[in-house]
Amino acid sequence: MAALRAFKSAENSGAEIPDVVCFEKQDDWGGQWNFTWRTGTDGYGEPVHSSMYRNLWSNGPKEALEFAEYTFDEHFNRPISSYPPREVLWDYINGRAQQSEVKDLVRFAHVVRRVEFDDQRRKFTVTVDDLRNHVTEVRVFDQVIVSTGHFSFPNVPDITGIESFPGEVIHAHEFRGAERFAGQRLLLVGGSYSAEDIGIQSHKMGARHVTMSYRSGPQGFAWPDGVDEKPQIERIDGSVATFVDGSSGEFDAVVLCTGYLHHYPFLPDSLHLRSPNNLYPNDLYRGVTWNANPQLHYLGAQDQWFTFNMFDAQAWFVRDLILGRVELPDADARASHMRQWSDRYQAVADDAAAVRFQADYIRDLIEQTDYPMFDLDEVVRIFLEWKADKKQNILTYRDQAYRSVMTGTMAVVHHTRWIDELDDSRERYLDAQTTADSVS
Amino acid sequence: MAALRAFKSAENSGAEIPDVVCFEKQDDWGGQWNFTWRTGTDGYGEPVHSSMYRNLWSNGPKEALEFAEYTFDEHFNRPISSYPPREVLWDYINGRAQQSEVKDLVRFAHVVRRVEFDDQRRKFTVTVDDLRNHVTEVRVFDQVIVSTGHFSFPNVPDITGIESFPGEVIHAHEFRGAERFAGQRLLLVGGSYSAEDIGIQSHKMGARHVTMSYRSGPQGFAWPDGVDEKPQIERIDGSVATFVDGSSGEFDAVVLCTGYLHHYPFLPDSLHLRSPNNLYPNDLYRGVTWNANPQLHYLGAQDQWFTFNMFDAQAWFVRDLILGRVELPDADARASHMRQWSDRYQAVADDAAAVRFQADYIRDLIEQTDYPMFDLDEVVRIFLEWKADKKQNILTYRDQAYRSVMTGTMAVVHHTRWIDELDDSRERYLDAQTTADSVS
Repeated sequence: MAALRAFKSAENSGAEIPDVVCFEKQDDWGGQWNFTWRTGTDGYGEPVHSSMYRNLWSNGPKEALEFAEYTFDEHFNRPISSYPPREVLWDYINGRAQQSEVKDLVRFAHVVRRVEFDDQRRKFTVTVDDLRNHVTEVRVFDQVIVSTGHFSFPNVPDITGIESFPGEVIHAHEFRGAERFAGQRLLLVGGSYSAEDIGIQSHKMGARHVTMSYRSGPQGFAWPDGVDEKPQIERIDGSVATFVDGSSGEFDAVVLCTGYLHHYPFLPDSLHLRSPNNLYPNDLYRGVTWNANPQLHYLGAQDQWFTFNMFDAQAWFVRDLILGRVELPDADARASHMRQWSDRYQAVADDAAAVRFQADYIRDLIEQTDYPMFDLDEVVRIFLEWKADKKQNILTYRDQAYRSVMTGTMAVVHHTRWIDELDDSRERYLDAQTTADSVS
Repeated sequence: MAALRAFKSAENSGAEIPDVVCFEKQDDWGGQWNFTWRTGTDGYGEPVHSSMYRNLWSNGPKEALEFAEYTFDEHFNRPISSYPPREVLWDYINGRAQQSEVKDLVRFAHVVRRVEFDDQRRKFTVTVDDLRNHVTEVRVFDQVIVSTGHFSFPNVPDITGIESFPGEVIHAHEFRGAERFAGQRLLLVGGSYSAEDIGIQSHKMGARHVTMSYRSGPQGFAWPDGVDEKPQIERIDGSVATFVDGSSGEFDAVVLCTGYLHHYPFLPDSLHLRSPNNLYPNDLYRGVTWNANPQLHYLGAQDQWFTFNMFDAQAWFVRDLILGRVELPDADARASHMRQWSDRYQAVADDAAAVRFQADYIRDLIEQTDYPMFDLDEVVRIFLEWKADKKQNILTYRDQAYRSVMTGTMAVVHHTRWIDELDDSRERYLDAQTTADSVS
C-alpha cells in the first residue's frame, strides 16, 4: 500500500510512472490488518497471512507510526486516543489507500507462485495463479518489490515431549482471541512482543494463570498476580512443563510466541533474503534493495520500532530509485555503504540506541526523496516514554496519550481503560470517543 | 511409496527402469502417516501435510487395505487385530518401503515449487527448493507422478458470525487429539468420516456433548448419549449456534469437518486437477493419467473406500504405462474409455454399488499389470460388513475381526475394546497383543 501510494503521489505531481501491478493473494488489501478468523490455510488453500487477533490494540502509540502525508487528523477529523484497536487502524490505512485511488492496480486473489530472473535479458518472469478463476499467468517485469512482510510464517521450534501435550498447542500466528483461555493455565513460549501481549490479553480475559518462558532473558515487567516468567522449557511430560531451572507446572494450553521466519516461497534461493530479524538485515542496500540484484526490493524486512512511516520512507526511496530520481551507486559503493551501516548497527547496545538507529536510518531515506520529513527525534522520545510507561505498568500503558509530531494534536484519553474495554469494535471506539468528547 | 515400490519391483525382476527421483517436502516419508504435532505450517514454513491425530485408529478393517504383495503376516509375523492404531499402520507401510530399499531415491525436505511443461520439447521443468540447504534446483523430467494425495488442504467454508465465536475454531486437518475437549460442548461441522470419528473420539475422551451439523443428510448412527446430529448452521452469535431447523445450542469449541480441496500449488492451471471428491475424478484416464497430457499422472486422486492396495494398482499401472508395457490408447480412445466409466459411475446409486464400482476399477488396473490379483469381491463383502458393524454400534465396530483375503489369516480380537483403550502406542499394541495371544 505504501509503494502504490508512493507511485501515485509521483504521478499526481506530474511524473511519468511505469506500469505498476500489485498481486495480492488475499481478497482485499491491508496485509496483516486484513483480519481473518481463519488459521492454517485460507478458503483457497493458501497459508493465512494475518497474525492478528480480535482484540488487538496497537502496542505502540499511534503517534510513532503516523504517516507524514496522511495524518490521523486528516482521516478522523478529530483527535482520537493513542492506542487504537485493530479496526480503527485498519480504517486509517484503508482510508489513505482509498484516497490514492490505487485499488485498480491490485489483482486480488492472485498468488505469486514464482519469481525468476533472466540474467541475459535482465528481466523477471513472474508466475501468478488467479485463485478465483483458476488461470495461471506468466508476466515479465523489470523490477519487483517484495511487500509481503515477514510476520506471517511462524518460527516453530521443537520442544521435547510437546507431541503428547494433551491441550491446545498453537503458534501466536494462529491466536485469534483469549476468551477461551478463561479459567485456564496458559504456557506462552517466548519472551518478546507476542508473549507480552497475548499474556496480558489472556490475563484480561480471565486466564487462571499465565506463564511466559523466555530464552534470552525475562521481559521483567511488573506482572499482575497470575502472570509470571520462567526460563526455557526443558521438556514436557503430559500436561506438565519442566523448566531449565528445575521448576515445573501443569498447563491447559500452550501458545508458541516464538517469532516468524523470513520465508518467501515464491523466491528462488538467489533472490531470497536470509537474515535474523534485526534492524539492519543482511544483503539489502539501504535496508531495501537486494544488493546482488538491485532490480529487486524488499519493504519492511527489518525488525520494527517504526512501522507505517518507515514503510513509507522505504517505498518513496525505492520508487525514486526506479524512477531514476535517486542514483544507484555501483556494487562496491553499495557494499561499502552497507558495511558502514552494519558496523553502526553492531555497535547498538540498548533499546534507546536501537530506536535512534532506526530513526537515523529513516532520516537517511527521507532526505533523498520528497516524502515529508518529520521530527524523528521527537518520535524517538515518544518510543522511550512508551517503554517507560510499559515498565511502570504493563496493564495501563495503553491508557496514556501522546502528541502528534505531524500535527501537534494531543491525543484524547480513551473513555474506557484498556483493561476494562471488552468491545474493541470501530463503532464502539468512535461512538464512545464522541461521547467522551462531548462530556469533557 | 507405492510408485517407488512399483518401479523397484520391476527392476528386481530384471527390467530396466528410468531414473526415478521423489521430492518429499517432509523430513521423512509416510505422507499422511508421518504424524506431526504441528499445525498450520511446519518448521520450514511449509503447510503441514498430515491431517492425523494422536489417537487415530484405522477406521476401516485392515483386511480391506492390505497390500497384495506385502501382507500383514509378512510384516508382523503373527496375527494382529483388524483396526490397528496409527503407529502400527505406519510401521507396516514403512516396513514395506524399507524392504524395497528405495529411500535413496527420495530427496527429503525438498519442496516442489513449480512444474511446467514445454509443449515443443515435451518435457517437464520442475523447480524444487531444498529446504535445509537453501538451494533452488531446476530439473527436467519426461514424466511426473503427483503423489501428494488430496487430504491436506482443508476446505473451509465461511459461516455467518464465526469470526466472533469466542472458543477454539479449527479444521479437522488441525485436530491432534480430543483430550482437551473433556467437559466441553463441541460443535462439529460436517457429516462424513471426519465428523464421525472426531465425534466419537471426543465422546471417548469425555466431551460433555458433541453435536454434528450435516449438510446433505444425517449420518444416522446409533449415537451414544451426549452425541447428536443437527442440520446446517444458519448463523453463530457469540457462543450460540442456530441451525436451519430453528434449534440452537451453546458451544465451547468448533471443529470444521468440511473436507479437503484438490489443491496442488505447484501445478499451473493447465495441469491442475479440478474435481469434486468422487470415485471417478474428472480428466483422468483410468483414474490416474491426465488425459490432456498423458505424461502427467495422479495417484490416489479419487475418493476412497479402497486405499493402500488401490494406490498399488494405480502405481503398477502408471509404471507399466511409463515402461511401455501397457499401451496408451490415442486421445479419442481414452476419452471414450473415460466416458464409459464415468457413465457407469453416474449410475452408482448407493454405497454397495460404490464399493463395487471401486473394486471393478481396481480389477481393471490390476489385470493389465503383474500386481497380484486378489479377491476383490471378498473385500467388497468386508466393506459391507464393516458398514453393518458401524450401523450396529459405532462405538464397538473397531472391536470386530476379519479374515485376510491375502493370506486367509483370521485377525485376533484386540485385548482391549477401542472405547477403553487410552494408550494407542505401537508398543502397547504389540506387547498387549502378545499377552492376549499367550493367554488365549
